[in-house]
Amino acid sequence: MPSESEIISKVRRGARRTDGVVVGIGDDAAVVRAGSGNDLIACCDLMVEGVHFRREWATPKLIGRKALAVTLSDVAAMGAVARFAMISVALPRDCSSEFVDGLFEGIFEMADSYDVSIVGGDTSSSRDSLFIDTTVIGECETGRAITRAGAGIGDVIYVTGDLGASALGLKLLGQGVRLGDCEPASSDESVENMRREALMKHLAPLPGLGLARAIGERRLASAMIDISDGLSTDLSHILDESGVGAVIQAGAIPIARSVESHSAGESNLDSLELALHGGEEYELLFTSRPECGARVDELSRELGVRLSSIGQIVAEEGLHLDCDGSRRLIQPAGYEHRI
Amino acid sequence: MPSESEIISKVRRGARRTDGVVVGIGDDAAVVRAGSGNDLIACCDLMVEGVHFRREWATPKLIGRKALAVTLSDVAAMGAVARFAMISVALPRDCSSEFVDGLFEGIFEMADSYDVSIVGGDTSSSRDSLFIDTTVIGECETGRAITRAGAGIGDVIYVTGDLGASALGLKLLGQGVRLGDCEPASSDESVENMRREALMKHLAPLPGLGLARAIGERRLASAMIDISDGLSTDLSHILDESGVGAVIQAGAIPIARSVESHSAGESNLDSLELALHGGEEYELLFTSRPECGARVDELSRELGVRLSSIGQIVAEEGLHLDCDGSRRLIQPAGYEHRI
Repeated sequence: MPSESEIISKVRRGARRTDGVVVGIGDDAAVVRAGSGNDLIACCDLMVEGVHFRREWATPKLIGRKALAVTLSDVAAMGAVARFAMISVALPRDCSSEFVDGLFEGIFEMADSYDVSIVGGDTSSSRDSLFIDTTVIGECETGRAITRAGAGIGDVIYVTGDLGASALGLKLLGQGVRLGDCEPASSDESVENMRREALMKHLAPLPGLGLARAIGERRLASAMIDISDGLSTDLSHILDESGVGAVIQAGAIPIARSVESHSAGESNLDSLELALHGGEEYELLFTSRPECGARVDELSRELGVRLSSIGQIVAEEGLHLDCDGSRRLIQPAGYEHRI
Repeated sequence: MPSESEIISKVRRGARRTDGVVVGIGDDAAVVRAGSGNDLIACCDLMVEGVHFRREWATPKLIGRKALAVTLSDVAAMGAVARFAMISVALPRDCSSEFVDGLFEGIFEMADSYDVSIVGGDTSSSRDSLFIDTTVIGECETGRAITRAGAGIGDVIYVTGDLGASALGLKLLGQGVRLGDCEPASSDESVENMRREALMKHLAPLPGLGLARAIGERRLASAMIDISDGLSTDLSHILDESGVGAVIQAGAIPIARSVESHSAGESNLDSLELALHGGEEYELLFTSRPECGARVDELSRELGVRLSSIGQIVAEEGLHLDCDGSRRLIQPAGYEHRI
């Protein structure tokens, strides 16, 4: 692996300075400026080799992109703007310069896509696994952060995009399928394309920053979270923090076409289970006052994004799944980070 | 090891909320408020088992304290106030609940001592090593952060406290000496007490937040850094960033009494080398305009801290050591994190 000072020099050269960066990489700490009187949003997310990813599953660039994407997704879930990031990496001694370059190329690409400045971090060697901890600082207008605690009885539950593909992607990786095996094919719904979609959803998630910000600016969400642990677990987080329950309609849950397609050919794959409990989707899950329905639909049309209403917040505690008229209490069967 | 949700619940219960914490642990991100119009200070520091520490060298509580202390020290070096912290830990499966409790007890103790709120973080299992990344967010008045880049020709170079003990502590740990072997003895300068001082300097460093803040408020420093990599390396960072050189007086470098005492009994231990190149001291190194000398002395008396003037900033590039009238250029022989 390259030396710590070589890595710092490279990162320092590569880091693009956006507005608000007074002192970037190269001092004891970064000095940054947020909008006057704004609230600050701060979070970090850890990616550990052998727990959250395997090096042989993806390119270093994809690993770098995802490490930052998952933390940006947390900022998105607050309805905030991401501004600054710090990256701590512990590198096994067998990491080549090319690997480290690729990793940071991915991190920079992701940061640039969302106008985020890398302002600091730390590097170390590691005796064994690769560890990446990314910290993001964002901001939003005072008092306007969307927490998990605001869901009210009668609110409608929405989810962005579709679900299940990341869990399918993880399953395929475990079975030995790799991105390189799934070259884009001419037939849109070919097995290769469907597999590729699932793998990309798992390996190259995109944080919903723009969409979440629009939801926040239009005050459409009473509570919001990103789906990192699975719909059932993340919805339960909202329910716990808001002190309410929910009923969701099985038929309304948007299942990724790659999952539908794969389950059609594999009888023991339950696509609803995957969509309900599969983690690392990085879609947004939010609750909205019923009177906002038309404006949610409008947002969906304007941005060309899928926003599915999947159920409602109720007074009765717990998460209930309504399946063809029969209702059952379901337990959050969240994503366990054990790959 | 305890489950991720058990750890989060414990940390959430244990985290003390100070002013400015709008949303603490338990949401996608923390929401915090800094003083209106202040600059934000952000940094993170990584501690990796087998690279920066060994579990058998210290109690879990001391490991936790140090993990946060080293990052607080970076905020100190900017002359800023530390406000909020986030802790990411990857825990090997053999970490017991007691170990994790001790680790966080140490982190909370350190946070409480400096009125810092733990507002977030992440936890994961780890296949092998323990990995702790701490992020601290602080603040200072706009434009008043003390960087490494402000040293001017003629400035006097000061160091707080004394040097070398942490490197001696690390050496003793490597030789198998443990804190438990060094019970406080009645004679102040006993071998046990001296060893204990060195071990504690290495295992339980204290960030110089109060002193650094006073230096900042009184505008005494033109540049500042904390000594984490060793005097020679950290002074070279100031020289590089400021585009200047320095001459330091060997005889003026404050050497810890534990180092003097130990080297008296061990002929192959060069105490000057230890003070010059030993890392992880977490003392402050700063440069000050010559006309501030009396006010620096005043601060030293008022706070009862040792502030040693060890040399001067010069135009000629490089770091020169003046030793009994003979001057030689020295290379930064910084601390390598390889234990």
